[in-house]
Amino acid sequence: MNCLSKIKYLLALCILSLAALPGVAQDHSVRDSLMIKAIYNQVLKTNSMDSNLRYLTGHIGARISGSPAATRTVNWAKSLMESYGPDRVYLQPVTVPHWVRGDLETACFLEKEKKISLSISALGGSVASGGMLRAGILEVRSLTALAAMPDNLVQGKVIFFNGAMDRTEIEVFKAYLNAVEQRSIGAVYAARKGAVGVLVRSLTLSRDDIPHTGAVNYDPQVKKIPAAALSTNSADALSVAFINDPQLEISINLNCINLPPVSSHNVIAEIKGSKFPGEIITLGAHLDSWDLGEGASDDGTGLVQSMELLRVFKAIGLKPERTIRVILYMNEESGAHGATEYARQALLNRESHVALIESDAGGFAPRGFRVEGEMKILSRLREFALLLRPYKADALELHQRGVDLVPMKGQARALLSLDCDDSRLFDIHHSKLDTYDKINPREVAMGAGAMLAMVALISKYGL
Amino acid sequence: MNCLSKIKYLLALCILSLAALPGVAQDHSVRDSLMIKAIYNQVLKTNSMDSNLRYLTGHIGARISGSPAATRTVNWAKSLMESYGPDRVYLQPVTVPHWVRGDLETACFLEKEKKISLSISALGGSVASGGMLRAGILEVRSLTALAAMPDNLVQGKVIFFNGAMDRTEIEVFKAYLNAVEQRSIGAVYAARKGAVGVLVRSLTLSRDDIPHTGAVNYDPQVKKIPAAALSTNSADALSVAFINDPQLEISINLNCINLPPVSSHNVIAEIKGSKFPGEIITLGAHLDSWDLGEGASDDGTGLVQSMELLRVFKAIGLKPERTIRVILYMNEESGAHGATEYARQALLNRESHVALIESDAGGFAPRGFRVEGEMKILSRLREFALLLRPYKADALELHQRGVDLVPMKGQARALLSLDCDDSRLFDIHHSKLDTYDKINPREVAMGAGAMLAMVALISKYGL
Repeated sequence: MNCLSKIKYLLALCILSLAALPGVAQDHSVRDSLMIKAIYNQVLKTNSMDSNLRYLTGHIGARISGSPAATRTVNWAKSLMESYGPDRVYLQPVTVPHWVRGDLETACFLEKEKKISLSISALGGSVASGGMLRAGILEVRSLTALAAMPDNLVQGKVIFFNGAMDRTEIEVFKAYLNAVEQRSIGAVYAARKGAVGVLVRSLTLSRDDIPHTGAVNYDPQVKKIPAAALSTNSADALSVAFINDPQLEISINLNCINLPPVSSHNVIAEIKGSKFPGEIITLGAHLDSWDLGEGASDDGTGLVQSMELLRVFKAIGLKPERTIRVILYMNEESGAHGATEYARQALLNRESHVALIESDAGGFAPRGFRVEGEMKILSRLREFALLLRPYKADALELHQRGVDLVPMKGQARALLSLDCDDSRLFDIHHSKLDTYDKINPREVAMGAGAMLAMVALISKYGL
Repeated sequence: MNCLSKIKYLLALCILSLAALPGVAQDHSVRDSLMIKAIYNQVLKTNSMDSNLRYLTGHIGARISGSPAATRTVNWAKSLMESYGPDRVYLQPVTVPHWVRGDLETACFLEKEKKISLSISALGGSVASGGMLRAGILEVRSLTALAAMPDNLVQGKVIFFNGAMDRTEIEVFKAYLNAVEQRSIGAVYAARKGAVGVLVRSLTLSRDDIPHTGAVNYDPQVKKIPAAALSTNSADALSVAFINDPQLEISINLNCINLPPVSSHNVIAEIKGSKFPGEIITLGAHLDSWDLGEGASDDGTGLVQSMELLRVFKAIGLKPERTIRVILYMNEESGAHGATEYARQALLNRESHVALIESDAGGFAPRGFRVEGEMKILSRLREFALLLRPYKADALELHQRGVDLVPMKGQARALLSLDCDDSRLFDIHHSKLDTYDKINPREVAMGAGAMLAMVALISKYGL
């Protein structure tokens, strides 16, 4: 950071940390408070989000990009949003990758002639191993540690990325972000040095036998090598075995496959603004999930929260002055092609986007928002957030975290992601544990309340 | 509230809502921040609390006052705290009630000659029904509604208290407090008007078949009538049946029994203050639980958090200037006899109590503390809380909620209860769902971090 941006950063922090001193919010009318209360009453009293999530997880379940389930999700979301009667619901075509896990994913090693199996899941997008891959392993704890290894030690090996998420990091999400590069680009770094495969410690604080998948990215210039996640227990076992026997060989078999890209869709609903129809505020989440679990937390909760806007605004007779779009993005998990296409169309159509809000942090108890925008926008958002203080959702932090908002950076005045308590997120994230029973309907409702209230305020006052 | 107390209340609110403006906390040294970081590192890195909770829930489980399991809990807690090597661990004798559920608790009614069973649990302390109790029912939604009923409508009936917790109340705990009198004193009000029994809708926001128990209080001057909690689904079914047939009769059978009081103990560990041994700060939770579930959330989490202080302070070499006691109270759930005895002894011994902190809000993600004390104490606590801002545990609210702290009111300068997110608390509270698998170790650890840091600050600076 240079000096100017450091000053800007500190100034932004100051703005965001201004608290609700009595009287500060007096320029907002009592009417705003009543509107927010009406929104919260709706989301807390009715159980439509819970019913919707139950249907999505129970009848559709996992819905990886390109899959028939993803198509069913598009159709379901379109019908559901139409049933709430907004001005318009439409599909936005988008081409997405189509990766299929296959039915074989095993890894094992021999210890005193006994076969020890490891609990693994191929990373999303991984190439197959092409039959049984057998190789020596090399354990490293980070990309930096790998970079420091002489190439001849890496050549022909399976690189075992065993960097654990830092438990002492207060934000679990930050611990994830600090460790995720092993998974997302580890295969590229390893292949550049001649490795033949990668195994990555699952990104979770849990100690269990559940592997957590996620996207692996390849570089077209670099050989694609197979990549899989190891459960934390398996990673610990492998680490001990490797220390005892640095010559340890591992056998990996993955028959996942990358099929040709397929046509899919974003699903968009619109309520036309009564005064400023050209100014757009969006609320969104992503339709696709990983192929394990039911995509309940990631991002079923965000989907039902976003769609809830249509139901609630209608139920309480709230007619927005600016145009509101609920946008359900396809393919957040493996390339964000849906969000990229949305941003491309927005640019082509010279749309004026006031703010984009998204929910993709798991559907847990909300604390507030993570925000990006110019200084005066932040201070405006701070004013709005004060009205959410009675709902304990007034905390603002810098830097939004929604992958689907990134393509709109520079095309919108503000980007906001719902900020939730992240204690439990990575226990289930990208794994077969991401199921309906892990979701608490009250937490989902409180998150919806915060987002709908923020949309209502922005649509009334602009930014 | 009179005018003066209103002004005091508003002033207190102002003090508590002062935020962390950069620089405000400058009078606290960097050393304090490092001490807090060391505390958090300890609780987050090691899994001793999780192991302890797993042992408590798995090997002891439910531990109602007076039961052999409660005695085992006393012995376990004493040994465990001794193993952490504080200056002293001792038992404080206390006499507690001894109620046993018995093996029979049924309720049913006839609908078109078909027997419909209701899912019930006797309330803790309830008298037995003395064989099958058969009577007409009368549904009311509150004590006030009951009071408005003519006595002749109530006489000979089972009163069905069906007041639901208000879903639109932002604090779920407040919704509980607003509804709990039906359970805690409904039987007295009903018996005064001639009722023969009470059924109470379970205090939860869940819609399921799980009854949630809790204490029923009797008045020695008023006939004791049997009282049981109904699951929310059963309450809804009974309500519909009652609307369809106001002559509906219900059959209830409870064979619970109130045995003579028994001797039990509080368990207390002490670290002597190096500078001001006469000034005492306590951290505590309660040993007993209801007899359903495993007492994991209520209050196993509070127990392991409190005992963790001894381990952590030793591990990081923190020698407190004031005396610290970890006090594990017996019998919070049905009379707080342990806490009452502790307060009585503290008075007898003319002890000087600086602050009492307790954890009995379920072990969920902490937000901060609920506090009571004089104005200047609140502003002092506000200063300390600022140091917890990086840990998202700096929110202070008025009015502590720990039942076990109430007897010390007036005998201590400050009372603090850990304030946690309450979204999930009443889904499991006082029911068979209160088991180990509902607990998230990260949330428990964050709560411990906040309390231990607060104890460390108070013991360093006083109040």
